[in-house]
Amino acid sequence: MDIIVTIFSTIIDQLQKPTLAFLIGGMLLASLGSKLEVPEPVYKFIVMLLLLKVGLGAGISVRDANLTELLVPAAGAAIVGVLIVLLGSRTLARWKGVSKIDGLATAGLFGAVSASTLAAGMAVLDDENIAYEGFIGALYPFMDIAALVTAIVMAKVSVARRASNAEIAADGTMAMNAAPKTEPAQIEGLEKGLVKTILVDTFRSPAISALLIGLAIGIFAAPDSVYDSFYEPLFRGLLSILMLIMGMEAWARLSELRKVAHAYILYGIAAPLVHGMLGFGVGLIAHHLTGFSAGGVVLLSIMAASSSDISGPPTMRGALPEANPSAYVGTSTGLGTPVAILSIPLFMALAAAFIG
Amino acid sequence: MDIIVTIFSTIIDQLQKPTLAFLIGGMLLASLGSKLEVPEPVYKFIVMLLLLKVGLGAGISVRDANLTELLVPAAGAAIVGVLIVLLGSRTLARWKGVSKIDGLATAGLFGAVSASTLAAGMAVLDDENIAYEGFIGALYPFMDIAALVTAIVMAKVSVARRASNAEIAADGTMAMNAAPKTEPAQIEGLEKGLVKTILVDTFRSPAISALLIGLAIGIFAAPDSVYDSFYEPLFRGLLSILMLIMGMEAWARLSELRKVAHAYILYGIAAPLVHGMLGFGVGLIAHHLTGFSAGGVVLLSIMAASSSDISGPPTMRGALPEANPSAYVGTSTGLGTPVAILSIPLFMALAAAFIG
Amino acid sequence: MDIIVTIFSTIIDQLQKPTLAFLIGGMLLASLGSKLEVPEPVYKFIVMLLLLKVGLGAGISVRDANLTELLVPAAGAAIVGVLIVLLGSRTLARWKGVSKIDGLATAGLFGAVSASTLAAGMAVLDDENIAYEGFIGALYPFMDIAALVTAIVMAKVSVARRASNAEIAADGTMAMNAAPKTEPAQIEGLEKGLVKTILVDTFRSPAISALLIGLAIGIFAAPDSVYDSFYEPLFRGLLSILMLIMGMEAWARLSELRKVAHAYILYGIAAPLVHGMLGFGVGLIAHHLTGFSAGGVVLLSIMAASSSDISGPPTMRGALPEANPSAYVGTSTGLGTPVAILSIPLFMALAAAFIG
Repeated sequence: MDIIVTIFSTIIDQLQKPTLAFLIGGMLLASLGSKLEVPEPVYKFIVMLLLLKVGLGAGISVRDANLTELLVPAAGAAIVGVLIVLLGSRTLARWKGVSKIDGLATAGLFGAVSASTLAAGMAVLDDENIAYEGFIGALYPFMDIAALVTAIVMAKVSVARRASNAEIAADGTMAMNAAPKTEPAQIEGLEKGLVKTILVDTFRSPAISALLIGLAIGIFAAPDSVYDSFYEPLFRGLLSILMLIMGMEAWARLSELRKVAHAYILYGIAAPLVHGMLGFGVGLIAHHLTGFSAGGVVLLSIMAASSSDISGPPTMRGALPEANPSAYVGTSTGLGTPVAILSIPLFMALAAAFIG
Repeated sequence: MDIIVTIFSTIIDQLQKPTLAFLIGGMLLASLGSKLEVPEPVYKFIVMLLLLKVGLGAGISVRDANLTELLVPAAGAAIVGVLIVLLGSRTLARWKGVSKIDGLATAGLFGAVSASTLAAGMAVLDDENIAYEGFIGALYPFMDIAALVTAIVMAKVSVARRASNAEIAADGTMAMNAAPKTEPAQIEGLEKGLVKTILVDTFRSPAISALLIGLAIGIFAAPDSVYDSFYEPLFRGLLSILMLIMGMEAWARLSELRKVAHAYILYGIAAPLVHGMLGFGVGLIAHHLTGFSAGGVVLLSIMAASSSDISGPPTMRGALPEANPSAYVGTSTGLGTPVAILSIPLFMALAAAFIG
Repeated sequence: MDIIVTIFSTIIDQLQKPTLAFLIGGMLLASLGSKLEVPEPVYKFIVMLLLLKVGLGAGISVRDANLTELLVPAAGAAIVGVLIVLLGSRTLARWKGVSKIDGLATAGLFGAVSASTLAAGMAVLDDENIAYEGFIGALYPFMDIAALVTAIVMAKVSVARRASNAEIAADGTMAMNAAPKTEPAQIEGLEKGLVKTILVDTFRSPAISALLIGLAIGIFAAPDSVYDSFYEPLFRGLLSILMLIMGMEAWARLSELRKVAHAYILYGIAAPLVHGMLGFGVGLIAHHLTGFSAGGVVLLSIMAASSSDISGPPTMRGALPEANPSAYVGTSTGLGTPVAILSIPLFMALAAAFIG
């Protein structure tokens, strides 16, 4: 009974929350033809502040944890984040009519973690007196950043490959009779160079730079006072403004999705369950190898099932401006988060059955 | 005795308040030739934040009130707001030498409400143990927004009409002998289309969009946490910066007013009293029709008498950038607000005489 | 023993502090080729907010002090600030290979005051039960602003003089035989006009304007509420962002200093001690003339020894954008501040010896 109350009150909180209200407000404004806009320089600064805060917060929680204890579960969490994006790249991103970039951006958000869903899961476990490791809160950055970076790099590789294919095709046409075919080994070499270039570019991009330098400062320095007095209070407010603007953008690009809406709806409902199972599987292995607790396994499943409504949208908007926010914000905030919250009891039942 | 103390301490607070201090500071900077400026993109964002906050705050106070109870007094408040602007458009805005736009912007600010004057009125009534309805705080947005939108639309119609008259005049000169005169009915049709276009443009403008979406989110969602932690604390600070900049602008355009200063001074002193009487009359009707309390009638009079120092300046600056802030901010902050505060006992005496 | 603990914990705090962590973070980002940047309009606004805050805070502390009591020590503090910059202009700024502007900017920061070093000094005196005047906190703006304005004006005069010398030289070459030599008196007249122009320009510049209008509002109005709720909390956060950006700039311009690093290192170590002696001398005179307390003399020495890590960097960045932040921020934050903190016991010993 308590579980159901907790879950429902979490869903109602979620729907009443400023995040969603401002997103819907932005869509309403766009539908009525409002000329409201955040000037580009201010927008860039807001995204930078949000990502610095996400990085700092993650860094502080990692610093407060025991690093040796954290190593194995953190690697597990990062692997789950990468696997979720790879899975999305083979399913949603290959769907006929779905733009590859939109599909990968969406998979990136589903691989990233919703801190509020994780908090809801912890509240449910606390209600039921189920114990879990204290360092769980420090695991989410590993899954979060692994998923976001994988999705961004794959999307950029895909764009670059398409551009270079177009070039090769053009070259091929022009030099059809004279030039020998490009050797597979040579292509592989080019590919490796391409991935390396994009990986470097991604880490140097303003969005990922801000996230990672925040993480480094959070881990190695003591920014807690400025975090509490500045980054944390500004965060919710600036996020509300980002959501207003993303709502306007999402509305303007909603029509692009008309023909593939069913793909996103199917993914938004199925993915949290599949990802949660993946997290459960990895957690179960950790349980048998290192004695990772049943509560920890449940929370890892919830992390995997959840999709980012905080770190994800500003990261994607900063690093992949060409991706359609109607796709990734809509699917993640509109479907992914509620489904993940509703599936909390499922992972608890699985843990009771498999671990006891 | 208590009344006088309350009123005087309110006036002193007003003069010592950051709002006025920064306004004067800006004028001082401009007079000394300072090159201080807020870059345009940041300025736009500040105005957007301020108006979102005004809207959210108004929406939250409306949501917390009983909507059916609110309906009649809210309509009354909105009517008073519109009447004040119409009155200003026939008096100040027609004064020889007064720019029509400046006159309407000033009337808009005098129609809008000063939350701090209203709070001073409530404090005085509390001191005297005079009861008033709990929903009074939720009335002010109706008067505020009605007055501001009316003033903006009338100013824009006036600009457009002048431009089109100039065009017709030019056409007329060129085609003097050939073309028949434009029919009155046709002009009326054009006029209606014009008003509609301007009304739509006004609601779609960044300033009014931000105000109204804030209002909608305040009423229909639960943005209280982000309002308390972000919008409310940033508000006073950003307003201080806006006032600094408006002070610099006001100084630069002060000379435009040299020949019509007496008109603004007369209006700034007389208008609060006339508007207060108007509010008192509407309140008296509501008292006889629906049993609106004597305290409520006094507070409606004070709302009508007060002129906006919070919502007004950013709205006018955003929606009517061509209006001269020396006129509207100067008259409203320099004369309107002190006179309104000083006239509080007058409305209490009137209520005692007419209602008892 | 207590002294040593207090000093060491202050140094460790300093190194762990967000200010330095973000500066190093910015250097790290730049070294890795990050493309993170704060858009120019936002940057200008951040600097304006920081300097308004510095001015407001200084103004509030001056207002809270007894002005007649303050007059003599304030004049002494301002003289020390000017002397430190003049000393720097004859030593560091004349060093072979050191850019005159970089040398003056560094001297300006060493003349300005570190509020946190001053606070550390007060904590040490409190630990030892040594009394000092209550108005000491109101002295620092006089030294701070005197040093910064002197350094900026001298740097601008130097740039202008070099430009005009180049012109005269060019004129001279072209008109070698015909034109008589410019008379010394005439040059002196030109010089006076130049200094006046630059002084006026400096006071009208956005950076110094913001600082001084904040000071005026802090002294003559009551901005305490907006200061506490807006400027103070935003300050640390915006400073962390400024430091991140200055770190990136500092890294990019570090190579310029390769050949003169020893000059800055020598200055960074010796200057705090020499400046502290200067402050001690002026304080000793005040002690004999007006009975200025021994504790007050120690704190004036610490103020003189300290170099600004708060007011200085944004002021220099705003007023002298061509100066190399690697030089002034690096020398002041990296060497000046730690040396000043370590020299606190020296000034206490001197006071014990000379005043008792």
